Amino acid sequence: MKIAVDAMGGDFAPGNIVAGVVEALREQRQITRLFLVGDTARIEAELAKLAPRDPRIEVVHAGEVITMNDPAVQAVRRKKDSSMTRAIDIVKRGDADAIVSAGNTGALLTAAHLKLRTLEGVDRPGLACLIPSPHNVFVLMDAGANLEPHPINLVQYAVMGSLYSQQIVGYKNPRVAVFSLGTEEMKGNELTLESHRLLKQTSLNFIGNIDGHDLFGNVADVIVADAFVGNAVLKACESTARLIAHWLKDEFQKNPLRKFGALLASGAFRALKRKADPDEYGGAFLLGVNGICIKAHGASSPKAVKNALRVAAQCVAGQFNEHIVKEIKKLHDNLRQVESAQPKVQTTH
Amino acid sequence: MKIAVDAMGGDFAPGNIVAGVVEALREQRQITRLFLVGDTARIEAELAKLAPRDPRIEVVHAGEVITMNDPAVQAVRRKKDSSMTRAIDIVKRGDADAIVSAGNTGALLTAAHLKLRTLEGVDRPGLACLIPSPHNVFVLMDAGANLEPHPINLVQYAVMGSLYSQQIVGYKNPRVAVFSLGTEEMKGNELTLESHRLLKQTSLNFIGNIDGHDLFGNVADVIVADAFVGNAVLKACESTARLIAHWLKDEFQKNPLRKFGALLASGAFRALKRKADPDEYGGAFLLGVNGICIKAHGASSPKAVKNALRVAAQCVAGQFNEHIVKEIKKLHDNLRQVESAQPKVQTTH
Repeated sequence: MKIAVDAMGGDFAPGNIVAGVVEALREQRQITRLFLVGDTARIEAELAKLAPRDPRIEVVHAGEVITMNDPAVQAVRRKKDSSMTRAIDIVKRGDADAIVSAGNTGALLTAAHLKLRTLEGVDRPGLACLIPSPHNVFVLMDAGANLEPHPINLVQYAVMGSLYSQQIVGYKNPRVAVFSLGTEEMKGNELTLESHRLLKQTSLNFIGNIDGHDLFGNVADVIVADAFVGNAVLKACESTARLIAHWLKDEFQKNPLRKFGALLASGAFRALKRKADPDEYGGAFLLGVNGICIKAHGASSPKAVKNALRVAAQCVAGQFNEHIVKEIKKLHDNLRQVESAQPKVQTTH
Repeated sequence: MKIAVDAMGGDFAPGNIVAGVVEALREQRQITRLFLVGDTARIEAELAKLAPRDPRIEVVHAGEVITMNDPAVQAVRRKKDSSMTRAIDIVKRGDADAIVSAGNTGALLTAAHLKLRTLEGVDRPGLACLIPSPHNVFVLMDAGANLEPHPINLVQYAVMGSLYSQQIVGYKNPRVAVFSLGTEEMKGNELTLESHRLLKQTSLNFIGNIDGHDLFGNVADVIVADAFVGNAVLKACESTARLIAHWLKDEFQKNPLRKFGALLASGAFRALKRKADPDEYGGAFLLGVNGICIKAHGASSPKAVKNALRVAAQCVAGQFNEHIVKEIKKLHDNLRQVESAQPKVQTTH
């Protein structure tokens, strides 16, 4: 399989990106070619530091970089020679199966959607994140792609998120929930109420609504929401974790006893950090586009890039997108059947 | 001033409610009468434990209780003799200035909106929460009242939230932001984009969008959002904090060294718990209804109830609702003026 990597995207590009790629290639023998796209001179300089060079690497020049602050749509339109769009072009031409980028999320979503288009039957792509919790790892989707979705989009997210959970997390029968502001069926807005109604008619393992209180309660393995809510929840969780770490550090500094105690207990803090480490989870996954598209987070370490490549390779090897097309077709056949049967059911009451 | 308290609402009612009321009365001499509404026998039993009895307390019987699991609208319609609705009725009749309840949030919002109606000029009430952060305490609004708001509702929240921040937190010129999924002006959904446009035309200290990453970054003192998003953010933050506490405790138990370290550093954990203690902030405030309406959280301790009563008393004393009516009128005059001036401005371009 072949993978294209945006070597210039992210806060520590190209250094961390190139280092992560080199590490990944050591582990992933199934990758037969890896395109490193970006400023050739800078990429070569990074590669030289990590010699000997893997013959599977091919550096592809791109003269521009989409920065983290570039407005997404304009950046994609104007910076046609950017490392990100060039990398996506390689997938579009069919020369690679997957793209990995740690660059500007909005631009990646826009470019991938525009250039790769959606998979057959998928109306809108969605961004899926894996979130660790004490007793399970759950998929939160959509974390930022589709701002004003229709109920059917959320249902399609549920199908794609379930496949993601099965293939990458390894759950056999992932529990699906709609994010709402209460667990009761009648709680929600127009979008969640109708999504809930449709999801009940699918063959997914749908368990109903979940609210923010139960996020980490091992209640659901796939949680669907519109991009606005998904993004808000994701960032609120991250902010709170950072806040608590910051506050605790501050408090530990306040006297020598606390400082010493924190030192003795430091194994616990390290273990917690490992458990909650986003680098372990290979970034976010733009599900529903025609090509595997992984968004590593902006501050990706080499390990994060390596894991993003592992997820990409796993998805290509597992024919992930082919499964999506099949399951989405099944979903729509199923929904059509149920909806056309419904008037009959009602008259028997 | 006179305050009505739902003595039966909340997980630890009537015990914690009555205890909190008795504590509050010791501190708040300005409260001249306090109605404790609910099961007379149970309330009297709790009062007897805390003798001598404050002569300002008047027990008012109500035969029913709205439980935490009752669906809001039905509960309000059917349980007309519930402690919550009876307490609100006292405010409606004008016999009390404020109502405090730790009961079912949805039912309280519904009953207060239905019975007390909104203040002059306010279209929809919103639930405001105070959230502690290292360098400021901010108001998040709406945390759960109005699921499908219009932009003007969010602008009114900004006005009411600013007054709340001024009067209760003590900020002179609170910074107002719209919660969105990015800080850039063009990022958002229809609701936030239009709210943003309107807020720029007000005399509020509007600083633009905020996203989940900056929540605790001392960027804004009043953050407005629709109820769905506000509720999601609030619960996600609470869940993450609980998750980390749970995970850390688990890790500390894993070996004696960590356990001992955690013991030495325990002052830091206690300090953090105090800082993040929701009981300090007197619960959430339903802003925009005709009467002061404070929702203490369901698991309220006596201290939480006492602080909720303190906030209620401060608001009554500070003529909080009169200020809202005045500021909302100013807002609409201002917006009308700007909007009617706009065609002129445009033609000069």
